[in-house]
Amino acid sequence: MDTRILDRINDPADLKSLSYDEVAQVAQEARDTIISVITERGGHLASNLGVVELTLALHRVFNSPTDSIVWDTTNQTYTHKLVTGRRDEFPNIRLQGGLSGFGEPTESPHDTLAAGHAGTGLSIALGLAQGASQRQLDSWTIAVVGDGAMTSGSSFEAVNNIVHLNPERFVVILNDNGMSISENIGFLTNWRKSLITHPEVQSMIGRARAFSQRVPSGDVLYRLVRRLNTGLAGLIVPTMFWTELGFQYLGPVDGHDIRQMEEVLRQARTPTGSVPLVHVVTHKGHGYEPAEEDPVRFHQPSSPLGAGSGAPTYSKVFSQTLTRLMRDDENVVGISAAMLEGTGLVDVQRDFPGRVFDVGIAEQHAVSMAAGMASGGLHPFVSIYSTFLQRAFDQIVHDICLQNLPVTIIADRAGIVGEDGKTHHGAFDISYLRCLPNAVLAAPMDENELQHLVYTAYRHQGPFAIRIARGAAVGTPLDEELKELPIGKGMVVREGSDVVIFALGKSVSAALQAAERLEEDGISCGVVNPVFVKPLDVELLLNEARRTRRVVTVEENVLAGGFGSAVLEAIAEAGLEYTSVHRIGMPDSFIEHGTAADQRRQLYLDAEGIASNVLNAFFPQVGAPKT
Amino acid sequence: MDTRILDRINDPADLKSLSYDEVAQVAQEARDTIISVITERGGHLASNLGVVELTLALHRVFNSPTDSIVWDTTNQTYTHKLVTGRRDEFPNIRLQGGLSGFGEPTESPHDTLAAGHAGTGLSIALGLAQGASQRQLDSWTIAVVGDGAMTSGSSFEAVNNIVHLNPERFVVILNDNGMSISENIGFLTNWRKSLITHPEVQSMIGRARAFSQRVPSGDVLYRLVRRLNTGLAGLIVPTMFWTELGFQYLGPVDGHDIRQMEEVLRQARTPTGSVPLVHVVTHKGHGYEPAEEDPVRFHQPSSPLGAGSGAPTYSKVFSQTLTRLMRDDENVVGISAAMLEGTGLVDVQRDFPGRVFDVGIAEQHAVSMAAGMASGGLHPFVSIYSTFLQRAFDQIVHDICLQNLPVTIIADRAGIVGEDGKTHHGAFDISYLRCLPNAVLAAPMDENELQHLVYTAYRHQGPFAIRIARGAAVGTPLDEELKELPIGKGMVVREGSDVVIFALGKSVSAALQAAERLEEDGISCGVVNPVFVKPLDVELLLNEARRTRRVVTVEENVLAGGFGSAVLEAIAEAGLEYTSVHRIGMPDSFIEHGTAADQRRQLYLDAEGIASNVLNAFFPQVGAPKT
Repeated sequence: MDTRILDRINDPADLKSLSYDEVAQVAQEARDTIISVITERGGHLASNLGVVELTLALHRVFNSPTDSIVWDTTNQTYTHKLVTGRRDEFPNIRLQGGLSGFGEPTESPHDTLAAGHAGTGLSIALGLAQGASQRQLDSWTIAVVGDGAMTSGSSFEAVNNIVHLNPERFVVILNDNGMSISENIGFLTNWRKSLITHPEVQSMIGRARAFSQRVPSGDVLYRLVRRLNTGLAGLIVPTMFWTELGFQYLGPVDGHDIRQMEEVLRQARTPTGSVPLVHVVTHKGHGYEPAEEDPVRFHQPSSPLGAGSGAPTYSKVFSQTLTRLMRDDENVVGISAAMLEGTGLVDVQRDFPGRVFDVGIAEQHAVSMAAGMASGGLHPFVSIYSTFLQRAFDQIVHDICLQNLPVTIIADRAGIVGEDGKTHHGAFDISYLRCLPNAVLAAPMDENELQHLVYTAYRHQGPFAIRIARGAAVGTPLDEELKELPIGKGMVVREGSDVVIFALGKSVSAALQAAERLEEDGISCGVVNPVFVKPLDVELLLNEARRTRRVVTVEENVLAGGFGSAVLEAIAEAGLEYTSVHRIGMPDSFIEHGTAADQRRQLYLDAEGIASNVLNAFFPQVGAPKT
Repeated sequence: MDTRILDRINDPADLKSLSYDEVAQVAQEARDTIISVITERGGHLASNLGVVELTLALHRVFNSPTDSIVWDTTNQTYTHKLVTGRRDEFPNIRLQGGLSGFGEPTESPHDTLAAGHAGTGLSIALGLAQGASQRQLDSWTIAVVGDGAMTSGSSFEAVNNIVHLNPERFVVILNDNGMSISENIGFLTNWRKSLITHPEVQSMIGRARAFSQRVPSGDVLYRLVRRLNTGLAGLIVPTMFWTELGFQYLGPVDGHDIRQMEEVLRQARTPTGSVPLVHVVTHKGHGYEPAEEDPVRFHQPSSPLGAGSGAPTYSKVFSQTLTRLMRDDENVVGISAAMLEGTGLVDVQRDFPGRVFDVGIAEQHAVSMAAGMASGGLHPFVSIYSTFLQRAFDQIVHDICLQNLPVTIIADRAGIVGEDGKTHHGAFDISYLRCLPNAVLAAPMDENELQHLVYTAYRHQGPFAIRIARGAAVGTPLDEELKELPIGKGMVVREGSDVVIFALGKSVSAALQAAERLEEDGISCGVVNPVFVKPLDVELLLNEARRTRRVVTVEENVLAGGFGSAVLEAIAEAGLEYTSVHRIGMPDSFIEHGTAADQRRQLYLDAEGIASNVLNAFFPQVGAPKT
């Protein structure tokens, strides 16, 4: 261990004096460290193994933090963390109090933003470059963008503006690993593949090459045909494409050959009047055979979904139910935004390859296309993680709710998500969906209710969103028959006369445990599963509120505008007096990484926390709950 | 009048039997009708005049409504309305109960979606085409997309997916009028201009042409060089660009020559294995000289902003204040998303051309770039209409609030907007911004408070949003000195002991009038201007609530999760009993078009409505207010 060169790298500047052999050794040491930590701990393995050499080359050619390196997304910064003074903390990555799995400016001046959503890097980098230019600094800004992130609309908007503003000292690195998280969708890939294999192109290349060798050099014709040749080559390597857009195209360069990359990066520093785009070809999982062979699985291994409990995940139950619906109705289709695996839609696609659409990292398009499909007589189910669904907010408002179309949205990973931390919690979907006219918003307390809600959404002639939690469901057996639930009706899951807890979705189980614990203290605590946030079962709410005069709400969403606010609104609307409402939910701050269990405990969202909250709010004389 | 051919067109099918001369006459009649109605009534003039012939050609070649024509956006559908059975209602367009200024499926089966936000058309059309294909219909789907809409990220996501799915019976019309609402930004335009003028390209074209004429045809060389020639021509007309993307490029075609367009549209119906993209070149304002000469002004003439009252608009006061800040601090910059005129930033740009950025219809990029700029030491002010800001919701969450960066967002046109109707009201921004950690959200009651809020935002080291109303401000004189307002502090603007109205932003004036009216009924009504929705002045709220026990909230936002909910949350949090809260705001439905004054009256958001609400809620014995 003490002979590792990596252990002497405390700052990127320390990399600069190394020979290429030594850098290659650092790359191997970084790769070994990442593999050993992440295969145990979980995290983004394949993408990080793909950019080890690229990271080192960037740090040798540029001067971070004077120069800003913006990663899109920052889940690829493990090597960057290892060489920017965070080597010793690396084994605690993604643990509470340990390093973030993403970029984190509070950890290091070498990190720009804590970005976890793809497609923002080019815009952020352009802003940084404008800042440097406005403040007359000589620093460089380097945006490292994966080909997956490049497919998002926000990247396109940025490309457009980069070419327009044509900033100085700005470099775009296209990290082309031939796939986004699922599989690269779209024309960049399409176009290249089709041209390479097109027989006419193949034959023209051959003829042009042969001809160019026969024509004497110096001749106009020679230059002309050479150019044609280059032009065609440019169709195969994407020179012409990017050049047409207005970039200075450099590459493609082998992303695992440090010397070659450094040469090109130095070339990129030479001003030409256009923004250089360096096309780096990397391999996800490079240097670790299992990840190279199955990069999708090793995108984020040791994902704790469903581990241990034996119950299926909510995502899985959704996808199984969708498969049932699709068997019976050929107008039902599924849509994913580069998350076929995570949402469970990959299984549905296996049975119905033509009816499951993976649109790439393009949540906006996913939702608008669903609107068109619904308008054209289909019933689309769009499954997107709650945090990424934010990207499609306007499309949900404008294309789904305003048009009142039968599109079902699954807001997956709603609430606490654990190790991915603050960029990934689904903390806002109740607030941003509940305010929309025509929307129905539901949250199942278990997997059996989920399957019925999926069916209910299918039968509903309007917008319907179902928020489901990350990870394993409760373990409730699934009814054989799917049934339509009455929209806007909740249910009492436990009777109680002193206080009633309205717990949403995943929190129902915790509330039931809390009620049992309160029973031990002599408090009769009811639990209601509202099922629907919108429309809320106001009748049930008012009955329970009148009876107990003490209402507690529990939700995995921020309190501002959340489910608890809907309860307050209904009570105020009814003019109900003498009813106290105590709301438990996510706080007005961003929740850092850690295990989901720890996060729930700290936020009082587990049984213990709910019980102590009820005691403190309404029964202070009973004192703290037993531990 | 009775000799008009247009008067005999009750269905698009009636157009098919006309001769080209007759169609030309219909075009003239449609153009005359649009000019006479819109110059009087207000509306989207220039864009509609640009697509008169295109609309007629589409309806002659395709069979609506069996075939779906999707306009991006639907504010260009005036001619379409005239020839689809709505000619007689056309004079009442944009009036309450009259035709919508946008597409409207409830008006006619010829309208697909009621889309008012740019950049959704390709996605919606693709969805419709998938629906038709899945249901084995033979219908065509035609997406008509302006070059402005094409710059939005959502369009790019759709292009990507269209090429991937390669749907049958699908046509894209690129309506290229060389400008979006402000000015076309970005590489599509850039690239074409630069290539046409590039000397090397010019010289190569010349040489290649000359050479190709010298080489005997039939020869391999001939074909080779012919191809080079075509290739270069393809750089000038964008054949190669779109062909590379995977489309069958057709055009460019003169968008005012119906015969030529029909030929190309018929050609587009011939299957080639690729989606045809028809490049139609139109002129905004065609046929109406004032609009042709100043299409930006005539984009939407007779806009009632500030008309009549003499007070400046809120947008204008914002832009004037920003200019002051920019004079004193060179790190202040402004950002617009294709709305330089509407947001007032056009005036700022005149003084500081290098520090005001118009990024095109690219709200996502606008906000992410602002994050980068703030991270790089600048203070960006991003002004976007509330309804379009929805497009950047994830970027506000992830790039601004999560990173806690000093970016100021002006949510312009917040609340009721009038004639543009349901796609354009700023009805949700309080709900979707109030839930975000680190966010400050304020709303000025008049233009003087606005200028101080702009200054306060400038001094604040974190995310700051200011929502301002459409149209004229109150007429309050502006203080000479800008001052920093205490964040989270509201103010009593009128004392009262029976009831207190917490009125937000523009509603303060109406609340003051309502209080005077209530005074006449012997009710002592206080009015509070909270200034900040977040952080809310809880101390002031609780004091007033304790004193009067009757609180009314007024806001131009939906009630779900809005300002009134923040008040309910604070009162519940404080455990305050015996306080009744009555909330007035926008309903849980989409508000149709009409005048803003009518809309406010119908929603009880004017003085009369507020007063009657207060009476009904708290003083039913007093009865209905005097009229």
